[in-house]
Amino acid sequence: MAIAKIKYTDGMQFVGEAGSGHAIVMDGDAEVGGSNTGMRPMELLLVGLGGCSGMDVVSILKKKRENVTGVEINVQGKKAEDYPQKYTDIDIEFVITGKGLSEEAVKRAVQLSMDKYCSVKATLEGSAKINFTYKIVEAS
Amino acid sequence: MAIAKIKYTDGMQFVGEAGSGHAIVMDGDAEVGGSNTGMRPMELLLVGLGGCSGMDVVSILKKKRENVTGVEINVQGKKAEDYPQKYTDIDIEFVITGKGLSEEAVKRAVQLSMDKYCSVKATLEGSAKINFTYKIVEAS
Repeated sequence: MAIAKIKYTDGMQFVGEAGSGHAIVMDGDAEVGGSNTGMRPMELLLVGLGGCSGMDVVSILKKKRENVTGVEINVQGKKAEDYPQKYTDIDIEFVITGKGLSEEAVKRAVQLSMDKYCSVKATLEGSAKINFTYKIVEAS
Repeated sequence: MAIAKIKYTDGMQFVGEAGSGHAIVMDGDAEVGGSNTGMRPMELLLVGLGGCSGMDVVSILKKKRENVTGVEINVQGKKAEDYPQKYTDIDIEFVITGKGLSEEAVKRAVQLSMDKYCSVKATLEGSAKINFTYKIVEAS
């Protein structure tokens, strides 16, 4: 069971603490009475998706002894126009940098995360269509 | 369009930066090769759910000129046993503290968030059954 406790501070600012013991600040923008002191709650979903799939990909490529020197994940989410404005489409781009990486290994790692392991992706895809691409960059 | 960029640092640590300009650290526990320097990606979904619904509730109760002195949201998520271990059930408890709060106003604010406004809830409920309760505490 994963747990979180979220406390109101002031304006539209909230502090969320999770079972792992870490805390983060969330806030809204001025338009909704916030002061932009922290991420929007909806942004956390995209960040979580990138972190979750990134951990899978790094973990799989390390096991295959691929020489990964950097991983960057770019996530974009499109919301419905009507309330409650849920995510309808999410694009993820994996940029994997390394020395002499096997394209087959990278492709397989990304696919395993997307199809089998990433819990955040599996949760979000109940509402949003999730598309993914990857790019391999040779480390200089 | 909401955006996020997630970068790998070391071990299982990633830094996620979102369009609002804020960044957070994510990490895994020792079991998956992490060092627990930040939240798990799956925890971010629960924190985001609490923040999103909390902002709605505070905003609605402020508009109604209710004297709210504190809001705490407790979120619990149950994951599927099998991979990809998505959330199957999420419970949210709203604890609203204030002076002479109208129970009707609190009930309505929570319902409006859950049924109409909360984008995170609307996104997550594609996969997870979301239950909510509320409790009113008289400020001392």
